[in-house]
Amino acid sequence: MGHVIALCGGVGGAKLEFGLSRVLPAADLTIVVNTGDDFEHLGLAIAPDLDTVTYTLAGLADRERGWGLADETWSFMAALTRLGLEDWYLLGDHDLATHVERTRRLAAGETLSAVATDLAARLRVTHALTPMSDQPVRTWVDTDAGPLAFQPYFVRERCAPVARGVRFEGAAGARPSPAFAAALARPDLDAIVICPSNPYLSIDPILAIPKVRAAIEAAAAAVVAVSPIVGGQAIKGPAAKLMRELGHAPSVSAVADHYRGLIDGLVIDTVDAADAAALRKTGLAAHVTGTVMRGDDDRIALAVETLAFAARLGGGRTRRLG
Amino acid sequence: MGHVIALCGGVGGAKLEFGLSRVLPAADLTIVVNTGDDFEHLGLAIAPDLDTVTYTLAGLADRERGWGLADETWSFMAALTRLGLEDWYLLGDHDLATHVERTRRLAAGETLSAVATDLAARLRVTHALTPMSDQPVRTWVDTDAGPLAFQPYFVRERCAPVARGVRFEGAAGARPSPAFAAALARPDLDAIVICPSNPYLSIDPILAIPKVRAAIEAAAAAVVAVSPIVGGQAIKGPAAKLMRELGHAPSVSAVADHYRGLIDGLVIDTVDAADAAALRKTGLAAHVTGTVMRGDDDRIALAVETLAFAARLGGGRTRRLG
Repeated sequence: MGHVIALCGGVGGAKLEFGLSRVLPAADLTIVVNTGDDFEHLGLAIAPDLDTVTYTLAGLADRERGWGLADETWSFMAALTRLGLEDWYLLGDHDLATHVERTRRLAAGETLSAVATDLAARLRVTHALTPMSDQPVRTWVDTDAGPLAFQPYFVRERCAPVARGVRFEGAAGARPSPAFAAALARPDLDAIVICPSNPYLSIDPILAIPKVRAAIEAAAAAVVAVSPIVGGQAIKGPAAKLMRELGHAPSVSAVADHYRGLIDGLVIDTVDAADAAALRKTGLAAHVTGTVMRGDDDRIALAVETLAFAARLGGGRTRRLG
Repeated sequence: MGHVIALCGGVGGAKLEFGLSRVLPAADLTIVVNTGDDFEHLGLAIAPDLDTVTYTLAGLADRERGWGLADETWSFMAALTRLGLEDWYLLGDHDLATHVERTRRLAAGETLSAVATDLAARLRVTHALTPMSDQPVRTWVDTDAGPLAFQPYFVRERCAPVARGVRFEGAAGARPSPAFAAALARPDLDAIVICPSNPYLSIDPILAIPKVRAAIEAAAAAVVAVSPIVGGQAIKGPAAKLMRELGHAPSVSAVADHYRGLIDGLVIDTVDAADAAALRKTGLAAHVTGTVMRGDDDRIALAVETLAFAARLGGGRTRRLG
């Protein structure tokens, strides 16, 4: 297999990225990370998905929480509370070094790509990891409580307000990051993997960048997604609730509908095996396997299955016929 | 007694400020803090002396170190080291909340005074605590290893280079902070106390602000200093080494010479009692007492003695005769 691009958001996607990074040589994988969740908080530039993927690939992520660093301490949060400052967003003490350094370097004029690449390298991540864009794209959720920026919606309000729609501020003026654009243009690009991240909140921001969706649709490479919905539930996060509120029953069919025209095949969990036939009737290839990643072995196994599935699809044919 | 202004730097001065704050009502004391040690580090606005005084007055300072917060943790530093970033300046995890908030608010256009006052109030400090100036003044030490900004000289190089001189970048264009200027102009100003801080590194920056030295010299209030040199040694920090390198034997006489024309009286330690007569011969009042502050009782006792000494001097007479 030639080059692989893998798109992802945070926790769920990072697990598959970890598996892909253990299967593919560093030169053969470009990891493209959602930045729609990024925000400025307490004057710090926070990039939650970039950090989750970086820490996961570095083997430093907390296994229980899925986000943040293992063996983290929370003194900074205690001090914020003592000072009566905003303390709804958890920032670990070790994690803060990442935010402080990123903030300093962005203020000095470096691109988010340059900072993300360097920070990953400092943690001995050898695979190419790039933000989707160096221009700020910010996810907003329109809710029955008014418009909410992503982190206030997701963390502060715990997704309680009913979502009416999702939009990506700044997307229209954003460009794919240099590494993302370069990977899309590679003649040896053989597969594009959409990791099991929230389609509406983690993958759609990437697709909202002008020319990205068209480039993926036009790619000769096979495009495969791994469903983040398993048995009608999201493995992690608010995908199922949000899908219902946006008018879609949470199911692998809804995921397939959402990605229709973009993907050649969908990897679904064994508990959803009964849906495979219906997917295939719509012209979409389906691969059934265990998709719930509990340990490193699961991550690597799913990466192997997903890459093999993409290799079998052989690039673009299904999608162009569909 | 009417109003009291007390000038100080960090650790040593903060102890006497604590004592003064336990003796004087909040309305009767203006604490003026050196900002020559301030610097930008990792993109954060660090104000070491302001924080030392604030934490000391709040009862939150670490008793062993003298600086920083009690029960501090150091995960942020460990993460900086893991990332290969600058880790020569210790920033505690709780302490970081102060720096992050100050940085954010200065960037948003607030004055250092406003931020310092608010942060102190959030830690329930009721006495007025003000930076010497809202304009940046930065202490540089010219050494045999070249010019060094204060923190690199003091912390990174541990004062090892031989000092040739000290200068205060930005001082000529600085103004006293509004609270400092207002206190200097009070008709009920009865005493100005120079705390036992390093004369060259902590007090001279304050005096280098245009019109400050002249205002103190012209004040009707009694001006008294507490010697930071005890038995030819500095209680804390590099005062003695620096004094020698600048050509002054570390002694209470050298402190008296340094402040001559500015102060009416000098408080010296009992171990230096033999020097009192010589000081008095030069026209300077001297008060001999225990000046080494080990616990809160010592701080309060020295504050009481210093204020009583100032009250006896009755304002300006000695200095104007001298």
